Amino acid sequence: MENKKMVREITAMDVDFAQWYTDIVKKADLAAYSNVKGFMIIRPYGYAMWELMQSALDGMFKELGHENICMPMLIPESLLNIEKDHVEGFAPEAAWVTFGGSEKLEERYCIRPTSETLFCDHFKDIVHSWRDLPLLYNQWVSVVRWEKTTRPFLRTREFLWQEGHTLHATREEAETETLNMLDVYARFCREYLAIPVVEGRKTDKEKFAGAEATYTIEALMHDGKALQSGTSHFFGDGFSKAFGVTFADKNNQLTHPFQTSWGCTTRLIGAVIMTHGDDNGLVLPPKVAPTQVMIVPVAQHKAGVLEKAAELETMLKKVCRVKVDNSDNSPGWKFAQHEMRGVPIRLEIGPRDIENGVCILSRRDTAEKITVQLSELETVIPALLQEIQQNLFDRALARRKEMTYTATTLEEIKETSAQKNGFIRAMWCGEEACELKLKEEADISSRCMPFEDQERVADTCVCCGKPAKKLVYWGKAY
Amino acid sequence: MENKKMVREITAMDVDFAQWYTDIVKKADLAAYSNVKGFMIIRPYGYAMWELMQSALDGMFKELGHENICMPMLIPESLLNIEKDHVEGFAPEAAWVTFGGSEKLEERYCIRPTSETLFCDHFKDIVHSWRDLPLLYNQWVSVVRWEKTTRPFLRTREFLWQEGHTLHATREEAETETLNMLDVYARFCREYLAIPVVEGRKTDKEKFAGAEATYTIEALMHDGKALQSGTSHFFGDGFSKAFGVTFADKNNQLTHPFQTSWGCTTRLIGAVIMTHGDDNGLVLPPKVAPTQVMIVPVAQHKAGVLEKAAELETMLKKVCRVKVDNSDNSPGWKFAQHEMRGVPIRLEIGPRDIENGVCILSRRDTAEKITVQLSELETVIPALLQEIQQNLFDRALARRKEMTYTATTLEEIKETSAQKNGFIRAMWCGEEACELKLKEEADISSRCMPFEDQERVADTCVCCGKPAKKLVYWGKAY
Repeated sequence: MENKKMVREITAMDVDFAQWYTDIVKKADLAAYSNVKGFMIIRPYGYAMWELMQSALDGMFKELGHENICMPMLIPESLLNIEKDHVEGFAPEAAWVTFGGSEKLEERYCIRPTSETLFCDHFKDIVHSWRDLPLLYNQWVSVVRWEKTTRPFLRTREFLWQEGHTLHATREEAETETLNMLDVYARFCREYLAIPVVEGRKTDKEKFAGAEATYTIEALMHDGKALQSGTSHFFGDGFSKAFGVTFADKNNQLTHPFQTSWGCTTRLIGAVIMTHGDDNGLVLPPKVAPTQVMIVPVAQHKAGVLEKAAELETMLKKVCRVKVDNSDNSPGWKFAQHEMRGVPIRLEIGPRDIENGVCILSRRDTAEKITVQLSELETVIPALLQEIQQNLFDRALARRKEMTYTATTLEEIKETSAQKNGFIRAMWCGEEACELKLKEEADISSRCMPFEDQERVADTCVCCGKPAKKLVYWGKAY
Repeated sequence: MENKKMVREITAMDVDFAQWYTDIVKKADLAAYSNVKGFMIIRPYGYAMWELMQSALDGMFKELGHENICMPMLIPESLLNIEKDHVEGFAPEAAWVTFGGSEKLEERYCIRPTSETLFCDHFKDIVHSWRDLPLLYNQWVSVVRWEKTTRPFLRTREFLWQEGHTLHATREEAETETLNMLDVYARFCREYLAIPVVEGRKTDKEKFAGAEATYTIEALMHDGKALQSGTSHFFGDGFSKAFGVTFADKNNQLTHPFQTSWGCTTRLIGAVIMTHGDDNGLVLPPKVAPTQVMIVPVAQHKAGVLEKAAELETMLKKVCRVKVDNSDNSPGWKFAQHEMRGVPIRLEIGPRDIENGVCILSRRDTAEKITVQLSELETVIPALLQEIQQNLFDRALARRKEMTYTATTLEEIKETSAQKNGFIRAMWCGEEACELKLKEEADISSRCMPFEDQERVADTCVCCGKPAKKLVYWGKAY
């Protein structure tokens, strides 16, 4: 009964998707609201997910030669003001520090909304010759953007992220870096989060303030809305010029280097929730599940049960992240609880199982139960975790395909958008006016110009009918 | 010649210790000054040290059942104001955010100088019953304190740290936690940083704002000044009462829980520099050295040298953190450079060595050189790293002992302090007046009342002559 009650506390996805999301965030103990509007508390379970994500991404960055550093949290207003587009994009949502103790500051500082300006200022000091390049830097920090409406993980005034900042001798090298890092994000989402993402380029309207080009990975959530899940920016030498960063090239000519930046955030936790979750709660891809296997002893007061559970835990620690729930809650409560928290595999073991030398494994993704010999657990579990990881990806990919539509006329795109959420593939002439009109009339924005799937579904722009330049994925977005 | 020149650029320790410190910070690429007064940039080499420290400490915390979480960066003024001693201690150096974008905030927020108030506010929401306790939380974040005078790592307006915050059902359990965590710090300093620390309790004058008791580990730097290197605080139920945190105990009585907090910071990087460094630069304990072995090829243009160096690197990667310096700088320049950066072992290999199947290992701590068979490297190097780690600790301990003095009268303590830096052991009556007088007349502060070494060196207070209560370690401090 208890488990029923607990599960019933989650709003069904179909009834109210936003409430379903909030319920999971709170009831799976991922985050809590704080006393500071728009700022969340990331609770141990949510933070453990973030640590697993960090560790995987950090390894991928370092593999490619990137080094971590740490820049100041504050940016002087005069520094933020140097690059025009950049300040226009970020100043309106900056948090300003005006007092240090009781002393009014001569110049305001903003809490970094992003750190291009600080990196440029540092690059100016440390780069002299082509021998100093490339600089491949990254930092794991939190940033603040004073957003009006916020939602845990998806849009918060403070969020955790990594921001990579690199500096290169040539335009080509920087462009390659920009795309390589986008690819790292895409691989990470596929392989760790089991999220199929669409890689592509943003239109100029949607690009980062100050960038020449912004590339993005876009994921499709359960409700058919798109979530921008990571971006990589190519700056050309625009920031270098604005900040006076130069180096002596091989011919001893003073030259402006080329720059990139790329970031992804705790928003990815929201992406995991909304890609894999169901009406029983969170469903975690094994690779980012803080606990991959939860052992639930049945009739744990009976002799030998808890001992056996502890023994299995010790054994399985070698091959996965495993825990025993030996709390005094009922098995039914525990089943519901760990289901809610998305633990990929539940291992049930009771007195009769022990007699028979078996246990029951229950999959979170399919609810399938299998009986397994204890002696085979060490090989069965890693294989099963891999199978779950793959199944989650396949399922998400199938859903994304199902929810991807094509439109060739304004009427058609308006009708599709009115009836369904999802990606809409449609041709575009390249004009911002058409993006604005589609936003206005069809309530969709351009998500990206995909690298793959550049099929010429029509010769004319879906909006104005002029000759089409690119296929664009359109959608409603978080 | 080049190496001479480079080394000459470091001020000698005896000439100007402060300048020597700054030279190492800058020339070993640990940190750089930023555009924001009092805020530093932690550069890749310094940050890699911090990552090694974090990883070791984080493992020790988790081993003891602590979980990481992440609290907001900002604290509303009204929340900071709840505990009287606490706000008096921290408000004067808080950085205040007064604007979000162009909108003036209704209430000011300060950037967290420490997070007790935020944790209490969260505890209030999530703790209901004795079953919810203990809560063993930690977070790795940066904090801001608007200090007047700053020095890289030692005292900066922003610093990185971890802050542990725990909540317990009983006073005893919380007291045990406070001391356990101090012990974790002490072990970490000894085993990883090779720094012998004195564990003890702070006097009331020196304790944390709002704590019942503060415990500290105090290290002695090369110049005989003390560095407070980590603190652990016992709050009793003071904060619980102020914030209205309660739980139903086993008898279903509403009770205030007991609380601790404990922190250590990037200041520890400063401690490493000033404990082990010498006139040739940084000397790193192998356990926190980003590169433990630097391979320097000699006559690297000759056939087979770079190949052999790369081969050794691949082989040694299994047993240590190793790199090859195959830049086109001269061997002499490389020797000086990696000496400056404190790399524990330099491995030199040239054409003749290759012929003979040997290489030369040079120790950073003793400058000793040994010739080693290449076939034995995989066993020799781990042993040598361990030996260096131990030697650094032994050396630091011997120096601390040498620089620890005893005084029994006011004249004596004034004379000792005037002539020497170091710890001065002297009895104390327990009155703050005597601490103030010793600060005034002997320029020393109480570092701690050590747990060990509570020898009764006199019956009377070194300052006022009244009956003595405790032996105190006094000293000049960073």
